[in-house]
Amino acid sequence: MTKVNVYVTLRESVVDPQGIAAKEALHSMGHDAVKNVRIGKLIELEVESNTVEADVTKMCDELLINKVIEDYRFEIEGE
Amino acid sequence: MTKVNVYVTLRESVVDPQGIAAKEALHSMGHDAVKNVRIGKLIELEVESNTVEADVTKMCDELLINKVIEDYRFEIEGE
Repeated sequence: MTKVNVYVTLRESVVDPQGIAAKEALHSMGHDAVKNVRIGKLIELEVESNTVEADVTKMCDELLINKVIEDYRFEIEGE
Repeated sequence: MTKVNVYVTLRESVVDPQGIAAKEALHSMGHDAVKNVRIGKLIELEVESNTVEADVTKMCDELLINKVIEDYRFEIEGE
């Protein structure tokens, strides 16, 4: 079994209301050092060991990622 | 300005309906190599360069993380 971590972030041009809310909440608690917050996703996949990069790319493109608003990169454990 | 990546995962014992739905959808599309999917969060912070590890831990503990159901780890860029 192999572990794959997919890191999903909102594209730069997309407004992130959840991130803005978190930033404002942090400021109100005195954490003024925080200049920006963006909230994305971390998708952890457990896959059979013969899974290759192309398989993961296919899963991301077909289902896991909304490429209109999201960017992604992934790491396959042990590679 | 320093970038901090906070990786948030659901605790092992917590059921992840979103992850289960993703796994089932991947199976229905023929991606049978996927044995498990867990969906967590990737929080990207932009902070002033003098921010230290203890500051980030405080932000996570006070606001960003729900420690009842979530685990986290973070990386400060350049450390």
